[in-house]
Amino acid sequence: MGAFKMRGAVNAIHDLDPEQRKRGVVTHSSGNFGQAVALAAKLMGLKADVVMPLGTPKVKRDAVINYGAKVTDCDPNLAARESATRLIVENTGATALHPSNSLPVILGNATAAMELLEEVTDLDSVLCPVGGGGLLAGTALAALYFGQQCQCWGAEPLAVNDAYRSMISGKIEINKETNTIADGLKTNLGSVNFPIIKSTVSGILLVEESEIIAAMRLLWERTKMIIEPSSAVVLAAVLKNSHIFKGQRLGLILSGGNVDLGALPF
Amino acid sequence: MGAFKMRGAVNAIHDLDPEQRKRGVVTHSSGNFGQAVALAAKLMGLKADVVMPLGTPKVKRDAVINYGAKVTDCDPNLAARESATRLIVENTGATALHPSNSLPVILGNATAAMELLEEVTDLDSVLCPVGGGGLLAGTALAALYFGQQCQCWGAEPLAVNDAYRSMISGKIEINKETNTIADGLKTNLGSVNFPIIKSTVSGILLVEESEIIAAMRLLWERTKMIIEPSSAVVLAAVLKNSHIFKGQRLGLILSGGNVDLGALPF
Repeated sequence: MGAFKMRGAVNAIHDLDPEQRKRGVVTHSSGNFGQAVALAAKLMGLKADVVMPLGTPKVKRDAVINYGAKVTDCDPNLAARESATRLIVENTGATALHPSNSLPVILGNATAAMELLEEVTDLDSVLCPVGGGGLLAGTALAALYFGQQCQCWGAEPLAVNDAYRSMISGKIEINKETNTIADGLKTNLGSVNFPIIKSTVSGILLVEESEIIAAMRLLWERTKMIIEPSSAVVLAAVLKNSHIFKGQRLGLILSGGNVDLGALPF
Repeated sequence: MGAFKMRGAVNAIHDLDPEQRKRGVVTHSSGNFGQAVALAAKLMGLKADVVMPLGTPKVKRDAVINYGAKVTDCDPNLAARESATRLIVENTGATALHPSNSLPVILGNATAAMELLEEVTDLDSVLCPVGGGGLLAGTALAALYFGQQCQCWGAEPLAVNDAYRSMISGKIEINKETNTIADGLKTNLGSVNFPIIKSTVSGILLVEESEIIAAMRLLWERTKMIIEPSSAVVLAAVLKNSHIFKGQRLGLILSGGNVDLGALPF
């Protein structure tokens, strides 16, 4: 499906016991995790419900439906999303899957960096974006267990620097405003992934919006791949912090190509 | 280097004898073939001269220089390009390489469809763009020799339909105007590739500019790859001619990502 969320969704469903599988899965998501759960459930023969906030782009809603999941609309706020999800759990016995704050999801996400380290064994650092924290926690575990003294860094927009502040304060900070082009990184860390991140990640690197856009353009021009802003933050962080990475062999986790081609920033 | 031209350039240089290799190669090109010759020559330890018309985008000129070739500027017309090339041949004894009207180049280009047919053996049709004719001739030969009754079709913008008209008239037609977004397809067929195309290609399919743009956008959205207009013509031709291809297994040769991201048509 073109995004790392599939790795977490597949692993989370693999972890269910036969009784749970019969009752299906549910998640709330306006983005890639909803699609990932829908597709993973379809491939493994489970029922899937996806709670989506009103206002979700039609193309994303259609993708979930095309993957065979049932969409339940709700008001566009976290309380409404969680309450709609809880209702489905109560009515159907489905297992609720969280897009980032779940160990099976984190371990599934870890396979991206694991595969990279299998191919390039001597990486000095691996970098990935941090939004909800599920990819960063997984990437850090992969660096720790499969790398040879490979450091893991997170990259985050300055405008939603909750992870950066959380690392300093030692507790989960939240974003009061979420005004960034990196729409996949607006979420906050969770109780499962934050302890992993706190103990394994070398640091969170902050980047400006203009740096994200410039890095995205450079990625498009050089790799010829459509890479979304939430992913381009990683290259932006490398370009901004050459003093940290000078002489290092770097691995960048790039994932996700959800871009509105009719409203590009360049 | 990200474009099929590399295949032809590499094969053409492979074909040179040791004496020719010592004297190097020369081509005139404002686009991918110049870069391909520069890079192929560098990889194989030859000198390369590339004649480039004044007005060529700096990024393309720089790419050729970065690959280690010597750039000679000339006036932006075919006569000036050919005369500058001839002068270099006379002075250095270099072998002139033509981007499309040369059998080694055609056979190098053929490896794209050959590799596709090795992987997907039962293609009913394979399609590629037609500009100078070097890719189409090679693709048609690959379909003939490596396919199982695999047809080969060319795709061309209506605005530069010289190949379409050439197939009808039986002789090489030229474009009087070249007003198309598919800037790689403005050139005409040649004496080496046209006889191959005439005897092996099932037909040339014409597409409108708006259809090229729509197909390009669809390719970007679904494949997440930056595919240039000159390549997107192929998908446009398939979408326009579903009556021809209904029920067939199709191979599309997509190559080239030269797009000015600051001036996108959508």
